[in-house]
Amino acid sequence: MSNRDRQKQKADDFLALHHAPTILILPNAWDVVSGKIFELEGFKAIGTTSAGISSTLGYADGQKMSLAENIEVVQRIVHCTTLPVSADIEAGYATSIEGVVEAAHAVLDVGAVGLNLEDSTGDPTTPLFDIALQQDKIKAIREMALANGIHLVINARTDVYLLNDQSSQSLRHAIDRGNAYKEAGADCIFVPDVGSLDKNAIAILVKEIDAPINVVAGATMPPISELQDIGVSRVSVGPRPMRAVLSLLRKIAKELMTTGTYTLMTESSITYSEINRWLTREKSNDA
Amino acid sequence: MSNRDRQKQKADDFLALHHAPTILILPNAWDVVSGKIFELEGFKAIGTTSAGISSTLGYADGQKMSLAENIEVVQRIVHCTTLPVSADIEAGYATSIEGVVEAAHAVLDVGAVGLNLEDSTGDPTTPLFDIALQQDKIKAIREMALANGIHLVINARTDVYLLNDQSSQSLRHAIDRGNAYKEAGADCIFVPDVGSLDKNAIAILVKEIDAPINVVAGATMPPISELQDIGVSRVSVGPRPMRAVLSLLRKIAKELMTTGTYTLMTESSITYSEINRWLTREKSNDA
Repeated sequence: MSNRDRQKQKADDFLALHHAPTILILPNAWDVVSGKIFELEGFKAIGTTSAGISSTLGYADGQKMSLAENIEVVQRIVHCTTLPVSADIEAGYATSIEGVVEAAHAVLDVGAVGLNLEDSTGDPTTPLFDIALQQDKIKAIREMALANGIHLVINARTDVYLLNDQSSQSLRHAIDRGNAYKEAGADCIFVPDVGSLDKNAIAILVKEIDAPINVVAGATMPPISELQDIGVSRVSVGPRPMRAVLSLLRKIAKELMTTGTYTLMTESSITYSEINRWLTREKSNDA
Repeated sequence: MSNRDRQKQKADDFLALHHAPTILILPNAWDVVSGKIFELEGFKAIGTTSAGISSTLGYADGQKMSLAENIEVVQRIVHCTTLPVSADIEAGYATSIEGVVEAAHAVLDVGAVGLNLEDSTGDPTTPLFDIALQQDKIKAIREMALANGIHLVINARTDVYLLNDQSSQSLRHAIDRGNAYKEAGADCIFVPDVGSLDKNAIAILVKEIDAPINVVAGATMPPISELQDIGVSRVSVGPRPMRAVLSLLRKIAKELMTTGTYTLMTESSITYSEINRWLTREKSNDA
């Protein structure tokens, strides 16, 4: 099978996971070894986290890193796993349709089979892109991908619930955007929140949006079995696992600096040889 | 002050930390955000871990990644901290003196002020480089750095205690190599172990090698206060913190896959906004 055929198959398999009887749990990696751990634990696909990747590179989240820097990490992750990989490309590192399509093309080029595209502008005065413009971007990405023979899985994210707008209009707004993005060609609608979405609201999103729904795990989110019961198709984790492990790193650092002991660093650790067994990449010129 | 003068000052400050009354605790970063956490916790300098960096890029440890890939990460870490950074360049990604000098030059070029150079060949039949050749590499690195106006801090590592050679000759062998490397121009002698060095042996290394001694923290290693009491100058941690946080990541993944809950992911976490406050890098063309 050619690389292109394999990628097409992987994209189709990934899309099918959004329509399966069991919910798709999509963990978000920020480098090769984090993705490798997810693969070894039996997840069926891997997402990336732009917040995570950008922090490894020295940037705050929010399109501070370049598309090329993001894609280089995506490529490394794809290269080291047989699982479908979906790339978080933020808002596409561009405002124009052409720019966003270029970003999506880069995703396909490195062998990923899905992407997240968010509707945040980064500008607090007009925080969300116009719905019609966002639809045009989704349509153009779909056309580009089909022209390349691949059903790229488009996870269209609406950031309505990240706006700190606690009005009762949020739910209506998210539904309208979700349906508009679906109509434009999105395969899944992603509604991230900051503790503002409850189980009832999620059930309404599932019912009112005519597409698979993706929510993000978090302290205030119902467990995965309940999300599945109310019909959620995909749950991802964003940068939460990375933030949790960085919290442990900080504790390890504090222990070194205060008591000068190594308990947290050594009490639970993956062995050196185990990690090295996972990573079988040979030197190559493609990265 | 010019960049070069700043780097010279930083190298001199870093060298002085090896001769200070208190032991130098040098944590090893594998990306920008891990280095940033060490900086914020008050460490005075940052090392890198080649095992850690290579696993983020998809390679097993042991010079599978390229010099350029390693150095790109070192550059990012240097770029985002004001602390002295010491780069782990394994055995220099070369067997020739010229090749090793080229690696050391790359370290200086990106603004780091120290390096680790190990004497492992990677070949099990002759696991360590000839002492005289290793001395010649150290001499050549010193000359290159001085020609560039910087006292690059050379941490010469001897892997005698990684050979699984439990003979009583190991201590004598490590002392001989340590003194030979010091004579060639090394600033510090690094003797990593895999639980095979005890406190008595470390005290003998300190006494018999005429240079600051670096050991690596671990489950069987005395706490830092005891290492300081017996005269150790520098303690580093290698990939141990990274392996510990990857162990937590695996537990987080298992929890997601089994109970479908988010306890480990959310019970202790650095906030999104805190991480973003740390990372102030702006888009640039230099990476």
